[in-house]
Amino acid sequence: MIIKLKPHTNPSDKYRFIEYLTDLGLEFHFSENSEAERIQVMANGKNIPWKEIKSRPIVDEILDSSNIYSMVHRNYKPENTVIELPGVTIGDGIPIVIAGPCAVENEAQILEIAHLVRNQGVKIMRGGAFKPRTSPYSFAGLEEKGLKLLAKARQETGVLIVTEVLDTRDVELVAEYSDIMQIGSRNMQNYKLLKALGRIDKPLLLKRGMSARLEEFLGSAEHIMSEGNSQIILCERGIRTFVEYTRNTLDLNVVPVIKNESHLPIIVDPSHGTGRRDIIESMSLAALAAGADGIMIEVHPHPEKAWSDPEQALSPDQFSHLMNHVNDFIEWRKTHALSPTRL
Amino acid sequence: MIIKLKPHTNPSDKYRFIEYLTDLGLEFHFSENSEAERIQVMANGKNIPWKEIKSRPIVDEILDSSNIYSMVHRNYKPENTVIELPGVTIGDGIPIVIAGPCAVENEAQILEIAHLVRNQGVKIMRGGAFKPRTSPYSFAGLEEKGLKLLAKARQETGVLIVTEVLDTRDVELVAEYSDIMQIGSRNMQNYKLLKALGRIDKPLLLKRGMSARLEEFLGSAEHIMSEGNSQIILCERGIRTFVEYTRNTLDLNVVPVIKNESHLPIIVDPSHGTGRRDIIESMSLAALAAGADGIMIEVHPHPEKAWSDPEQALSPDQFSHLMNHVNDFIEWRKTHALSPTRL
Amino acid sequence: MIIKLKPHTNPSDKYRFIEYLTDLGLEFHFSENSEAERIQVMANGKNIPWKEIKSRPIVDEILDSSNIYSMVHRNYKPENTVIELPGVTIGDGIPIVIAGPCAVENEAQILEIAHLVRNQGVKIMRGGAFKPRTSPYSFAGLEEKGLKLLAKARQETGVLIVTEVLDTRDVELVAEYSDIMQIGSRNMQNYKLLKALGRIDKPLLLKRGMSARLEEFLGSAEHIMSEGNSQIILCERGIRTFVEYTRNTLDLNVVPVIKNESHLPIIVDPSHGTGRRDIIESMSLAALAAGADGIMIEVHPHPEKAWSDPEQALSPDQFSHLMNHVNDFIEWRKTHALSPTRL
Amino acid sequence: MIIKLKPHTNPSDKYRFIEYLTDLGLEFHFSENSEAERIQVMANGKNIPWKEIKSRPIVDEILDSSNIYSMVHRNYKPENTVIELPGVTIGDGIPIVIAGPCAVENEAQILEIAHLVRNQGVKIMRGGAFKPRTSPYSFAGLEEKGLKLLAKARQETGVLIVTEVLDTRDVELVAEYSDIMQIGSRNMQNYKLLKALGRIDKPLLLKRGMSARLEEFLGSAEHIMSEGNSQIILCERGIRTFVEYTRNTLDLNVVPVIKNESHLPIIVDPSHGTGRRDIIESMSLAALAAGADGIMIEVHPHPEKAWSDPEQALSPDQFSHLMNHVNDFIEWRKTHALSPTRL
Repeated sequence: MIIKLKPHTNPSDKYRFIEYLTDLGLEFHFSENSEAERIQVMANGKNIPWKEIKSRPIVDEILDSSNIYSMVHRNYKPENTVIELPGVTIGDGIPIVIAGPCAVENEAQILEIAHLVRNQGVKIMRGGAFKPRTSPYSFAGLEEKGLKLLAKARQETGVLIVTEVLDTRDVELVAEYSDIMQIGSRNMQNYKLLKALGRIDKPLLLKRGMSARLEEFLGSAEHIMSEGNSQIILCERGIRTFVEYTRNTLDLNVVPVIKNESHLPIIVDPSHGTGRRDIIESMSLAALAAGADGIMIEVHPHPEKAWSDPEQALSPDQFSHLMNHVNDFIEWRKTHALSPTRL
Repeated sequence: MIIKLKPHTNPSDKYRFIEYLTDLGLEFHFSENSEAERIQVMANGKNIPWKEIKSRPIVDEILDSSNIYSMVHRNYKPENTVIELPGVTIGDGIPIVIAGPCAVENEAQILEIAHLVRNQGVKIMRGGAFKPRTSPYSFAGLEEKGLKLLAKARQETGVLIVTEVLDTRDVELVAEYSDIMQIGSRNMQNYKLLKALGRIDKPLLLKRGMSARLEEFLGSAEHIMSEGNSQIILCERGIRTFVEYTRNTLDLNVVPVIKNESHLPIIVDPSHGTGRRDIIESMSLAALAAGADGIMIEVHPHPEKAWSDPEQALSPDQFSHLMNHVNDFIEWRKTHALSPTRL
Repeated sequence: MIIKLKPHTNPSDKYRFIEYLTDLGLEFHFSENSEAERIQVMANGKNIPWKEIKSRPIVDEILDSSNIYSMVHRNYKPENTVIELPGVTIGDGIPIVIAGPCAVENEAQILEIAHLVRNQGVKIMRGGAFKPRTSPYSFAGLEEKGLKLLAKARQETGVLIVTEVLDTRDVELVAEYSDIMQIGSRNMQNYKLLKALGRIDKPLLLKRGMSARLEEFLGSAEHIMSEGNSQIILCERGIRTFVEYTRNTLDLNVVPVIKNESHLPIIVDPSHGTGRRDIIESMSLAALAAGADGIMIEVHPHPEKAWSDPEQALSPDQFSHLMNHVNDFIEWRKTHALSPTRL
Repeated sequence: MIIKLKPHTNPSDKYRFIEYLTDLGLEFHFSENSEAERIQVMANGKNIPWKEIKSRPIVDEILDSSNIYSMVHRNYKPENTVIELPGVTIGDGIPIVIAGPCAVENEAQILEIAHLVRNQGVKIMRGGAFKPRTSPYSFAGLEEKGLKLLAKARQETGVLIVTEVLDTRDVELVAEYSDIMQIGSRNMQNYKLLKALGRIDKPLLLKRGMSARLEEFLGSAEHIMSEGNSQIILCERGIRTFVEYTRNTLDLNVVPVIKNESHLPIIVDPSHGTGRRDIIESMSLAALAAGADGIMIEVHPHPEKAWSDPEQALSPDQFSHLMNHVNDFIEWRKTHALSPTRL
């Protein structure tokens, strides 16, 4: 449950109220950035005297909240969370584009792509150095060497870097070389990793698991946020269904549902979400029309030679075509207040 | 397989070629509207002398085609199928809006809605007179009386009528009162009904089954088209997945996939597809951005009192809000050639 | 809701109680075979004076019941429904085997199989004369000719016949030639067909739809039973999931769930349910261990030459191997009261 | 690909053949326990002179194998892998039962259950000390303290311990206190954890992920086995589908499919797989009839008070009832060679 305090309460009244909650033996968190302060009270199976709390003069109302994701819920923080990075913000209503290869393969490849995406106006490049692969015999990334190549690409071109971290033991290493750390679909419920990343001061990109329900997706974000890190970008990347004509079923419905439910930004990855180069542009526009805060696109100078997922990477020409439509649509969206209806 | 003839062949050469195919004992269909004529040859398990056929001077090439849906495939007819109705066309690149209640309830309700949707510029009204219901004790539609009320609404307002037919025995009755006949999700594989509708000269709206794969969806369209009726509008209306936050999972990916694969128009029903009033506007825009030829929306003067599916109908105000954004976006789309990349 | 009367009420008291319910304007059904009589009262949106009804001396208790499937619910009829056919009963605790080809192909084929299955002790043969096919160009059954061949096989061998009906217009024709009429998965929600079959006095085999939830499956049975026909055999035949190693995902969990929820017998079709010859025997035993009232198996003298679904038909040798294990297990089950725990 | 050598080859010939493969620059693994030796050759994108290799006198045949799971494939090792533990073996044809609580709660609880399950003849007890939970505010296990209580239960009763490990940093700690280490569903594709466990000499229980296809499940086993540890017990625990009447859809079809495909033992967890106490006994028998090497059951002295998953734990009485049926059925299975047909 969320306690919403009356606006403009004076600090000493607030202090006394917090003492009171402490005396009740409650555990709680503050949402300080909020217009009016909000306090999330942990239930932990306790009997909490809600009636008495509500009767306190300082209390405006008691808001319902999911037991699973109360800090990421809009009732805890009504305004959108905006992630500020050098030269780019995520979640402020202007969609962003992240682009890059599936995996870092070598210096020439990653530098070529870094220039290519920057020349299209892209500010953030993706690229995997640690790759989870179904087969133990597939290319699993260049690991630290890959991270260094990404750092070099950033230095040469100024693009920011988002890259995946797979293991708690690598958190510091990956943090050193990246601007945003990605938690992949297969690790969405690796709670030890989530907690470790919750204690880092760096933006995170949390990809939805292949069979994650809403409570599970936002619950994973809550695992991070409850440790202190609220710089979380959610990412829809396709769910597993019976459908055979796409690699996964990109579920755009989750975008307006989450915009209603949570203050966190959400972007969409149509490359992994569909696995089909021919529909990525269409689904990118659809994602932005659904209200996404951005898209993440795979691009490769020679898609047919990519070391992983070649069938879903766009060629430079295809990417340029996509960026023209996407930029035009972003302009249109600026003049149209797209948002799901709050009911 | 599809035989593509060379362009501008003279009629007598064509006549002799057809005699030749007939002598081979083959069964075949023509795609007459095509630029160059295309002939679909039925395999039926026969050994067909493709090499010999290909060597004929009149033959341009032999095109591959699904064994299941060859007439609805773009290789049979490269140009979009356009459905012409009085005052409105479907499939010509300008998206249309169909709107109306889930079910016809009484004269006052259906006339009120007919005026309401017409005043928003909508040309086609939906409304069920025969309703498939999970419970035998639920309201199952006014049947013939409902059809008569729809006809009255058309007479008063000029809106065209799309309504569902459930049984082969009702085909003529429903055809008499409607402009477009709908085959519902639950009947997508009712092949006797599809065949009966394939012999009628009236546009059809074929809704995707809840667990239909691409071959099944287009195979059902082929059942209709192989009987002679090619005025088919496909409709995505949500698939069944593990997802719990929407009633069904609206699968927009199928839109660009079908635009690539087939010449038939495809529209999207976000009302049934999501079952959530709060995200229908977002998903309508997303559908149009994905390339849909139209959307179908449930609207009710008093959604909370609707006899079926109250949680998904828009109120008149919500519908008006949606139409503003949709009309603006349709304008934007006119200046942007949206289409999936053919690879 | 179900009104349960006290046991051994005298007829005149019962008569007066019924008059009373009639005067209240209620619609209701009797479950006459029950130990104590039970009356299903239709809600139809009415306000029913339950408190007053409960206070009547004749009333034992008011039992909750699904609004969707109250007559097929165990609260309406606590004892198992047993279907009596000449020489075989279904639902009495001793599992039965139904076997035969996917489709009737010709006289020699169907007679050979009829002898083959009868020699293995099978009393009921399956065989399709009307076949729903994804492609309009696939073999769709011999129709009436096929029905006549099935009748001939019955005459020669004494096996009873189960065969599918696809259309309301064919109900009488198929009824004439068959002992059990099958409603296929694709027609599970063809409510007009269900209602027509509800007015026939012949056992029905209702196959679960590929994406049917419990309410939908039992709701379809209720559509039949509410028209008067309670001789319904349910059949699990696999659901549609993301799984790729079986054609469908045979969902045995539904067996004990339905044994708890409903009085109707349920059998399992591992041939369609898995589509893999190599696991049909294993899954047949599993179905019987889960509590199924029988299994339905595809067998063909030359599976590789079958006109439909060749990869799932057992050869005569494989079928004989399966029958040995199945018969042994049926003996074991007779001495073990298998049933899900009622909680 | 797998190279199968001729039986009874003399060591020096074998030595020379290995030198030859080494000179070709190939990477390979031996399957030493096999009747005839088998060598798995890693492709790694290389051109391998298969024709020349096949012509060598020592080579019997070249067997196809999945690129993703070649060491866990039966072509690499035709005989069943049998896991030997003190007093119990897994995979030798006689099914085993693992039972215990979802989580270790306190000393009294775990000791009571250890005595309870041992008195029913159970040799291996489950119990979680590290619990992955959707909510960060739910009980996540007693961690090291829980491991110590499990060790105490083993000391007092002699039951072996299976418990979950969540993080690479805890591998040694959990290994110290357990007999079998469990990899949970949510970590099935945590490849860093799999690799770390592949380097440990202790049996592992690998639970299938909620949306894992066959290649992914066996691919995860291959990640472990390719590091050296082949003591892997697979576990089916339910997949995520649209079905609503069970918490997950227990997919028994995977049991005979895997018995055909792999030499590894597979057990079934109907407690997590269904989440419904009332059908666990039915599904346990079905699992064993499908060919499973064992079952894993949740039991709790007071299920309604369990700290996690109370609705799926059996009470002591229900567990005793289940064990009676299970033991009887295990006797029956000993006299019936149940196995899927190899085709």
